[in-house]
Amino acid sequence: MTSSMKRTTEKNLMVFSGRAHPGLSKEVAKELGTELVPTEARAFANSEIYVRYEESVRGCDAFVIQSHTAPVNEWIMEHLIMVDALKRASAKRITVVLPFYGYARQDKKHRGREPISARLMADLFKTAGADRLMAVDLHTDQIQGFFDGPVDHLMALPILADYVREKYGNEDLAVVSPDAGRIKVAEHWSSRLGGAPLAFIHKTRDITRPNESVANRVVGQVEGRTCILVDDMIDSGGTICHAAEALMNDGAASVVIAATHAILSDPAVERLKASSAREVIVTDTLPIAAEKRFDKLTVLSIAPLLSTAIREVFEDGSVTSMFDGRA
Amino acid sequence: MTSSMKRTTEKNLMVFSGRAHPGLSKEVAKELGTELVPTEARAFANSEIYVRYEESVRGCDAFVIQSHTAPVNEWIMEHLIMVDALKRASAKRITVVLPFYGYARQDKKHRGREPISARLMADLFKTAGADRLMAVDLHTDQIQGFFDGPVDHLMALPILADYVREKYGNEDLAVVSPDAGRIKVAEHWSSRLGGAPLAFIHKTRDITRPNESVANRVVGQVEGRTCILVDDMIDSGGTICHAAEALMNDGAASVVIAATHAILSDPAVERLKASSAREVIVTDTLPIAAEKRFDKLTVLSIAPLLSTAIREVFEDGSVTSMFDGRA
Amino acid sequence: MTSSMKRTTEKNLMVFSGRAHPGLSKEVAKELGTELVPTEARAFANSEIYVRYEESVRGCDAFVIQSHTAPVNEWIMEHLIMVDALKRASAKRITVVLPFYGYARQDKKHRGREPISARLMADLFKTAGADRLMAVDLHTDQIQGFFDGPVDHLMALPILADYVREKYGNEDLAVVSPDAGRIKVAEHWSSRLGGAPLAFIHKTRDITRPNESVANRVVGQVEGRTCILVDDMIDSGGTICHAAEALMNDGAASVVIAATHAILSDPAVERLKASSAREVIVTDTLPIAAEKRFDKLTVLSIAPLLSTAIREVFEDGSVTSMFDGRA
Amino acid sequence: MTSSMKRTTEKNLMVFSGRAHPGLSKEVAKELGTELVPTEARAFANSEIYVRYEESVRGCDAFVIQSHTAPVNEWIMEHLIMVDALKRASAKRITVVLPFYGYARQDKKHRGREPISARLMADLFKTAGADRLMAVDLHTDQIQGFFDGPVDHLMALPILADYVREKYGNEDLAVVSPDAGRIKVAEHWSSRLGGAPLAFIHKTRDITRPNESVANRVVGQVEGRTCILVDDMIDSGGTICHAAEALMNDGAASVVIAATHAILSDPAVERLKASSAREVIVTDTLPIAAEKRFDKLTVLSIAPLLSTAIREVFEDGSVTSMFDGRA
Amino acid sequence: MTSSMKRTTEKNLMVFSGRAHPGLSKEVAKELGTELVPTEARAFANSEIYVRYEESVRGCDAFVIQSHTAPVNEWIMEHLIMVDALKRASAKRITVVLPFYGYARQDKKHRGREPISARLMADLFKTAGADRLMAVDLHTDQIQGFFDGPVDHLMALPILADYVREKYGNEDLAVVSPDAGRIKVAEHWSSRLGGAPLAFIHKTRDITRPNESVANRVVGQVEGRTCILVDDMIDSGGTICHAAEALMNDGAASVVIAATHAILSDPAVERLKASSAREVIVTDTLPIAAEKRFDKLTVLSIAPLLSTAIREVFEDGSVTSMFDGRA
Amino acid sequence: MTSSMKRTTEKNLMVFSGRAHPGLSKEVAKELGTELVPTEARAFANSEIYVRYEESVRGCDAFVIQSHTAPVNEWIMEHLIMVDALKRASAKRITVVLPFYGYARQDKKHRGREPISARLMADLFKTAGADRLMAVDLHTDQIQGFFDGPVDHLMALPILADYVREKYGNEDLAVVSPDAGRIKVAEHWSSRLGGAPLAFIHKTRDITRPNESVANRVVGQVEGRTCILVDDMIDSGGTICHAAEALMNDGAASVVIAATHAILSDPAVERLKASSAREVIVTDTLPIAAEKRFDKLTVLSIAPLLSTAIREVFEDGSVTSMFDGRA
Repeated sequence: MTSSMKRTTEKNLMVFSGRAHPGLSKEVAKELGTELVPTEARAFANSEIYVRYEESVRGCDAFVIQSHTAPVNEWIMEHLIMVDALKRASAKRITVVLPFYGYARQDKKHRGREPISARLMADLFKTAGADRLMAVDLHTDQIQGFFDGPVDHLMALPILADYVREKYGNEDLAVVSPDAGRIKVAEHWSSRLGGAPLAFIHKTRDITRPNESVANRVVGQVEGRTCILVDDMIDSGGTICHAAEALMNDGAASVVIAATHAILSDPAVERLKASSAREVIVTDTLPIAAEKRFDKLTVLSIAPLLSTAIREVFEDGSVTSMFDGRA
Repeated sequence: MTSSMKRTTEKNLMVFSGRAHPGLSKEVAKELGTELVPTEARAFANSEIYVRYEESVRGCDAFVIQSHTAPVNEWIMEHLIMVDALKRASAKRITVVLPFYGYARQDKKHRGREPISARLMADLFKTAGADRLMAVDLHTDQIQGFFDGPVDHLMALPILADYVREKYGNEDLAVVSPDAGRIKVAEHWSSRLGGAPLAFIHKTRDITRPNESVANRVVGQVEGRTCILVDDMIDSGGTICHAAEALMNDGAASVVIAATHAILSDPAVERLKASSAREVIVTDTLPIAAEKRFDKLTVLSIAPLLSTAIREVFEDGSVTSMFDGRA
Repeated sequence: MTSSMKRTTEKNLMVFSGRAHPGLSKEVAKELGTELVPTEARAFANSEIYVRYEESVRGCDAFVIQSHTAPVNEWIMEHLIMVDALKRASAKRITVVLPFYGYARQDKKHRGREPISARLMADLFKTAGADRLMAVDLHTDQIQGFFDGPVDHLMALPILADYVREKYGNEDLAVVSPDAGRIKVAEHWSSRLGGAPLAFIHKTRDITRPNESVANRVVGQVEGRTCILVDDMIDSGGTICHAAEALMNDGAASVVIAATHAILSDPAVERLKASSAREVIVTDTLPIAAEKRFDKLTVLSIAPLLSTAIREVFEDGSVTSMFDGRA
Repeated sequence: MTSSMKRTTEKNLMVFSGRAHPGLSKEVAKELGTELVPTEARAFANSEIYVRYEESVRGCDAFVIQSHTAPVNEWIMEHLIMVDALKRASAKRITVVLPFYGYARQDKKHRGREPISARLMADLFKTAGADRLMAVDLHTDQIQGFFDGPVDHLMALPILADYVREKYGNEDLAVVSPDAGRIKVAEHWSSRLGGAPLAFIHKTRDITRPNESVANRVVGQVEGRTCILVDDMIDSGGTICHAAEALMNDGAASVVIAATHAILSDPAVERLKASSAREVIVTDTLPIAAEKRFDKLTVLSIAPLLSTAIREVFEDGSVTSMFDGRA
Repeated sequence: MTSSMKRTTEKNLMVFSGRAHPGLSKEVAKELGTELVPTEARAFANSEIYVRYEESVRGCDAFVIQSHTAPVNEWIMEHLIMVDALKRASAKRITVVLPFYGYARQDKKHRGREPISARLMADLFKTAGADRLMAVDLHTDQIQGFFDGPVDHLMALPILADYVREKYGNEDLAVVSPDAGRIKVAEHWSSRLGGAPLAFIHKTRDITRPNESVANRVVGQVEGRTCILVDDMIDSGGTICHAAEALMNDGAASVVIAATHAILSDPAVERLKASSAREVIVTDTLPIAAEKRFDKLTVLSIAPLLSTAIREVFEDGSVTSMFDGRA
Repeated sequence: MTSSMKRTTEKNLMVFSGRAHPGLSKEVAKELGTELVPTEARAFANSEIYVRYEESVRGCDAFVIQSHTAPVNEWIMEHLIMVDALKRASAKRITVVLPFYGYARQDKKHRGREPISARLMADLFKTAGADRLMAVDLHTDQIQGFFDGPVDHLMALPILADYVREKYGNEDLAVVSPDAGRIKVAEHWSSRLGGAPLAFIHKTRDITRPNESVANRVVGQVEGRTCILVDDMIDSGGTICHAAEALMNDGAASVVIAATHAILSDPAVERLKASSAREVIVTDTLPIAAEKRFDKLTVLSIAPLLSTAIREVFEDGSVTSMFDGRA
């Protein structure tokens, strides 16, 4: 038949990065043995963002990395615009990579007439042209269901827990959740740390003085134990530092804080420094400025996890063990 | 101008019911001062479902009630077909009323290559023609975000908690979650019951014998207390009955079980009867057959909550206090 | 250019089966020289269905087979959930294979305020993630137009008609439709059987006694002929057995029944056994339990048709001659 | 509360007409007691169509009438553009009124690699902004299922059949379908004409001379009867005139032709005039030019049916009896 | 019939404002005789935005005003989140009001691999839940076509031009466009100012020294005339100030600058002050901080235009004369 | 693993052509070294269009060429139907190739209650199944943003301008736009022709006699120059011939007309012949009948541009320089 023209098909992985956390993106590209696609990205005088790729992206399998650090809305909008430009430039498949997923905490209506911004973000990325999402430690697992398409949900737990086990494994441990709603995460930690006992902090209001402050009551046995206080993120650090204090008051031997996402909004650094925590362990899913780093802060690299996942997605490998490796 | 023809607009509430739990629907209609729209619904010889409305539904504000009891797939499909028929018959607005939302527990991928059936259900109803959802005590709040449109999320907690407070309020209470992942619900109960202390059951596996059974460890103080063991649903009753047992072993004075949705799959009734629970309090969001009722089971009516909410939605009232009335 | 990473592309066919008719799926896979993807599928205590694939499906060209036998809603829901799980697990393309398409007969509103469930099913599969459909002998050809995407419409007619021609070809044949609405199918048979004369059964009501039974009038010449009574499906068998009786009363030499889909709802087997039909010829698009099989029932295999079609779709072959092979 | 401003709501019916068949639209508007909305519609030099409404249409309940007569594509495109203009001008609801639905006959793939243009048209109208369709005697009922929304399917049968019964009711009638695929329509006629016997024309090819012409075989008893030859449309008239001839050859007393849609493409008028038909009865769903009218042609008005339906839709009345009035 | 419950329908206008330009929103609400709906809106520590309405919005006709001033992305995201919250809280209709539409200048790909951000914004608002848009002086009229729904495009030209005519009408005028691509706007001005002659500035590059600066050549006759230099917006003011200078060099009597949108990014104010312009006339579609105001700057109020348009939209009035009032 | 079957992937370019301008399509195919896919396309008696491909198109990368010449609606509908047939026949990717994009001039609402037909066309093609568009010299660049997907916007300017430069480059040139709204195009020409001075025609109405004719005033210096009068299209030729006349009246040495799209509706040919233009240069994006060709008309071939672009798209090459080659 002469009315057609054949070629063998090649696929072509390209990694793109917004301006929020270029260090991480570069490391991911490097681990993949490639380089970031050269991209012009800047703000106009009135703060509108402009993006343009300096190489052809036609037909590529695009992975677009942006970590939603402050100013969050700036970087999300840049991320959306990057996806739009890829769609219009004929990228074949677009995977939005979110080391930290902005607005993940607004994943439900706490009260009437609130938005569900975490769902909105999933829809905005879909509208812009995203075919798939890849994210690390979503605030709740249900967020996977907010996106109409495949979501690769990576877990930093093995990275953090292996570090903790190696360093503190021969002490008498307890795993503590700073909040009743996050005990499930602590349960995963507990099972990974050989069945260490669980505890959580219950915040109560003195009903006789409702406008006054909150008491932090420890539920579970922590006396004499090295408490691994775990959460998915540290924002301004209030909750976790109060929790650490409550644990020490309750007789804990020491407190080690571990969290995937180091947002570290002010005054998190001051609080953590001043706290009784022995060590604060986080990953670099978000950029941590030099001036926010302090002695007892340990930052583990998330790039190996992201690059392995990207390679497997590109090569259609089986990555379930890696993605959902909770046990 | 003669090239148009004017009329004042009226709106017209109509309540529809599938065959899963007609008693509840009738009660809801009755409280609203109306009747269910006469509907022919039956299965053909090969089990396909047929539905037809026996009155005009053109322009109506439709509320279609179906509770997803077993056989769940049967009733969900009937629900979808009812919505399709309403859409094609020119109903103006379609609110799908789900006293119990089927597949709510499959709200995330626990492991790779699983569906997220709770999101799928939301999308199926949207596709069939649903404009809005109304549901009672969703398994997780995030399910609201699975639907692309308004969701009225009603809470049975006030009904259940008021009953408990009145009956057991002068005893020494503790609120207990049967599972680490559900403590948030217990926290709402605690705050509604005047700040009663919290506890939860931590299931652990003996790591030296991984294939053997699970230990239920109580985390929190329950000794000498009347434990209100709370959950959103009782399915086959295993978890909750083991939790009750663990509480009694830990010295609880007594255990009262409270849950919104009484699925009561076999052998729930046997387990609950045989358990040490003093009383089991549920609502009738799901039908409870006469042979499943037993002495210590108390069933509270959910119809007043549903009918009030439907009226408010129809009349554009403010119902936030009612819907999200957690404190 | 170093900012990209290339690979040659491979495609990967995988065949999946629900629990409705696993025998057929296994045969299809075997004819393709592969095996069904190992799948965990079961119902929870409350009848919700759970599905999980036990191998990576990332990037595959998926064919998901489920035949919508009773309980129809159960198997359709399982089918939808399987598609959702494939979509979320990054299957590249999803073809829903429907040996029998449930709800195909509800393809129009016969009266006001009915659903069009056949369209609804097409939309539900689209929503769940289906890219394409493949079906055998749809009740009406228009159903192809209900799906927004490619539909491969396979025809069992050649399989059935070749069998009939070989066995009865040297008798004096007539092709008969049991219903005025299905004569088009009979016309295809007639043309395939060398132009055999056509007849149909006209059901009339005695207008003086409207509530009484229906007369079956044969329209066309059948006297002395071997009547091939053809339809797309046999459900409870009433229509077709009455037609057979009417033909014998009108002087037919004998009656042979041929249909693609053997639903055989009660009391079809009893009726067919008791009927004057010489042979009943069907395919195994639907499972036929051992106790539903009887002496004069002949079951032809549909697996070769399905496996050939799947291979052609996978390999981008031309299959029109096969799909639409009406003459 | 001062943060809102209330008004009672009015609804406002407006009738719009394309240029294909303005006479019918005017009659419909007149029966409704209103006038067509003044509209500028014309073709530019290069044949692109321009449309503009000369009155505000904001918030109106719009009914847009266009009959898809030749040049069909011209009028369909005008229809789509009119809908787009209404959507962008803030019409509240848009009902597309199709006295004759163009491309209705391409409702399935007869062979591979064909379009399903009837579905395409439904989708194009949806995309342009149609909320609802209203159509008269669709070629197949399944077309209702092609549109994702309400379709009011009106039937001209009562109008035609009442005329026939009054005029020919005391003769010995038979109802005849010109084609095996259209007998269902004949069956409705038969039941409306008191159970008159049915017949159809079976076209066969002489298999020894496949490239030669087709034989028209009458299936059913027509001898001595007044044959009412019924179809949904008369296009170039070949099929129906051959059928009339075959009936006369088979001994019919006379033939009366009845059809809803008088397309009358060349050389239909010549054929019908020359045919043995006693009378040809049609409606004016399509415009019939003066030069296409001939002595034995009777044209019944469809405007009363359309205007009644529009009024009922506007006023949310129950119109099922009218729409599906098959007896 | 007792199976329904009727009410007359009321509609309810509510005006909402983001935090970008509350002064304008308040003025609009005041002109409408209502108040802004009380709204909680703030940024969390990590800069994510939180919004909640403090009154029920169920069933309302919502107008949500936000002017996309710097930081643009911040305010667009707030705008989107406000729309999401309205959709989920059951607002009946949502009109997004954009006194200034962010990213309007990125309305096409100037070069390959650029986004079309103006289209992206339209899609994002649609996805969030916007039913309609209302905007003032879009950068190009085609942006109306980017939104899939009604767009009310308001024009500030009459406000600005009436001011100019009254003040400068008895001088010898010319209308000048600062750029070849914007002459259409100047043409509208010219026709509004009684047919004043047109001119424009043609920027050319000296082809012998391509990397050097640009020459501004005046095309058209301006000598001795009061030049009204018109544009839709003044951003950093470079283009317009160079144009003013070129006009003066070419012998213009004086230059008056008029533009709808006063972005005034640095160093616009310095440039304008230092320029030879006699007066700079703008509207307050964007907030203009006190420190950005200077002697020869005149700010006309846009609130009357917006409030009139909102009222007309709410009351289904005809507003075409107002919206498109170009002559 | 035996549960899958692998193949290497091939891609397969196929070129399809409607009946509007087959000569161009054949030339494009020939330049690509292939042939047009054999296609049956014709009109039925009532003017409905029928299309069928005579070869398998399963899995192909389809480029469907149709130039929207008069009768525009006919050819657009054929184009849409061709896309539908490709979608349903399992083409892998569908690029709609539009040498001339019909309705491009209706790209905005000039007045209230108009359609935006250029956006409508983009949406209709999307709905029919188009994945991508390719077009030559869109009337405005913003039309790219009307399509939700990649648009390859090719420019004929280099072809036309190179011809002009070679032939007239050593004369004293001016570039003239016939209309204030099209000067941007003239600016591109000017820059390509080494910075030739710009002018435009300003149409004014004598305000004392508003119903009378329009004056064409030349803005810019043209005296003694060879004026290259440029536009994207020549429709009935009125504007451009009046412009030529105005230029000659203003002292131009001569006028050369250049435009991409030669619509040449009546009486364009008469006007152009009679005009003072020295040469009229166009491309063959639209068919130009023999009787429309005249001595001073030069037609340049567009096929090389289209075929190069198609090859690059098929092979994922970088084509930005070619597509946006504005220098």
